[in-house]
Amino acid sequence: MKVLSSSEETYRLVDQMRMEGKRIGLVPTMGALHEGHLSLVQRAKQQCDMAIATIFVNPSQFGPNEDFQKYPRTLQNDLNLLADKGCDLVFTPTNAQMYPQGHSTFIEPPSVAEAWEGPIRPGHFRGVATIVLKLFQILPAHVGYFGRKDYQQVAVIRAMCRDLNLPIAIEACQTVRESDGLAMSSRNRYLSPSERQRALGLFRALEAAEKLIQEGCISGRQVEQAMRKELETSLVDSIDYAAIVHPDTLESIETIDSEVVGIIAARLGATRLIDNATFRLT
Amino acid sequence: MKVLSSSEETYRLVDQMRMEGKRIGLVPTMGALHEGHLSLVQRAKQQCDMAIATIFVNPSQFGPNEDFQKYPRTLQNDLNLLADKGCDLVFTPTNAQMYPQGHSTFIEPPSVAEAWEGPIRPGHFRGVATIVLKLFQILPAHVGYFGRKDYQQVAVIRAMCRDLNLPIAIEACQTVRESDGLAMSSRNRYLSPSERQRALGLFRALEAAEKLIQEGCISGRQVEQAMRKELETSLVDSIDYAAIVHPDTLESIETIDSEVVGIIAARLGATRLIDNATFRLT
Repeated sequence: MKVLSSSEETYRLVDQMRMEGKRIGLVPTMGALHEGHLSLVQRAKQQCDMAIATIFVNPSQFGPNEDFQKYPRTLQNDLNLLADKGCDLVFTPTNAQMYPQGHSTFIEPPSVAEAWEGPIRPGHFRGVATIVLKLFQILPAHVGYFGRKDYQQVAVIRAMCRDLNLPIAIEACQTVRESDGLAMSSRNRYLSPSERQRALGLFRALEAAEKLIQEGCISGRQVEQAMRKELETSLVDSIDYAAIVHPDTLESIETIDSEVVGIIAARLGATRLIDNATFRLT
Repeated sequence: MKVLSSSEETYRLVDQMRMEGKRIGLVPTMGALHEGHLSLVQRAKQQCDMAIATIFVNPSQFGPNEDFQKYPRTLQNDLNLLADKGCDLVFTPTNAQMYPQGHSTFIEPPSVAEAWEGPIRPGHFRGVATIVLKLFQILPAHVGYFGRKDYQQVAVIRAMCRDLNLPIAIEACQTVRESDGLAMSSRNRYLSPSERQRALGLFRALEAAEKLIQEGCISGRQVEQAMRKELETSLVDSIDYAAIVHPDTLESIETIDSEVVGIIAARLGATRLIDNATFRLT
């Protein structure tokens, strides 16, 4: 497995692979890899000739009061995991390389960035859209792989690619969960044992929503109330949102008459977790 | 010469050319072509295997009080001129194709967009940066050709490409002038005979600046005053700016101690013209 940190060298190599007719799959990550990330690499291996990962903790997507400094950095372990999965190339740039002095161009993200995470994390999707576009230029892949756990992020990236005509397909892959249901996240390691237990509330709330919809409830409001009740019962410390939304527009759904998505953001101590699930009418 | 309006078909064709190892030169235009544009196509022909032009009057770079509606549209003549120059492919998308319903992602342009044209044409460089990035994705060329007449535009595009890691080289080509010195522009056709005469003030002001600098004047302020005096003598109707700036940052220069650029924007009736020239110390 090759590990490169120069964007020029990386572009030359990936462009050369393209010229050789190889289909290229890209998995952008911030490191601190878990089974969720590795499932993306696995999917890229299955669907493409070359599986490439990037590891970069992107400062521009963290707010001033967020966890950029303490975000887990486990590079050597990450590289071992990627090598085990048969990853062909890893791009690990420095901050100075991605944001050199004078860098001042950003992506103004699509309107699907405006709700939910948008107002709670001002500038987050601007940073995400900018780094993803940059990575798509440095590593001109055919397919980009992202986890559905970050549901709104995937919607933002899809809309950006459509609006800016980026010649890449976006694959959203299933959320990978711990055996008890907690969605895997690099931030789970922040949780104390008590927080780890109470964090199950997010999964339980999504289960409650699914049950209610399968029982025939078509009121988005009622399902949201059931999710909130479950979150409170599980003693999460606070709820940023718990909503039933349209799968593409992420607008709140009043009457459930087709596929919808339940999205949740909640806090356990200083840790903020998100989760989601797609519900189909039966 | 092939003429395409579908972005998907165009991408496929240009990507295929790339895969065949062809070097591709791109000349983005808004049509209403003149010798300035054609010199860009000629340069692309010289330096590349395929010369591609785009014709699209981009609504997002016009302000609400600007000339989007009346901007000259001379498609058939433009295509004839491009064919005569040996252009290989022309991309002529519709507004609905470039900005379909729901389009909401834009480029927040680099800081070099903030001065001069920036505050006078709010949103202009945001629109320029967005359309140029979109065209660079649909037509993945090796080199993009732009006229130096739009000096700040070239600086904005160069900075965007650097900041967003776009894998394309930007070539800025010499301004082409009428025999009396007026810089060629699609907007020159708006000028009445009197305005056309008085429009020479921009060129004369740049000549005056050059003369003064060659005589040893090193005060940016004094050179600016000389440019303004010449513009007033030539009876332009108003001056938006006349400045001596740094060639890269476009910041005003107090003391001329290396290469500088004189930039001018002035109005003749309802028509706004810009021009510039680079001055080297002798």
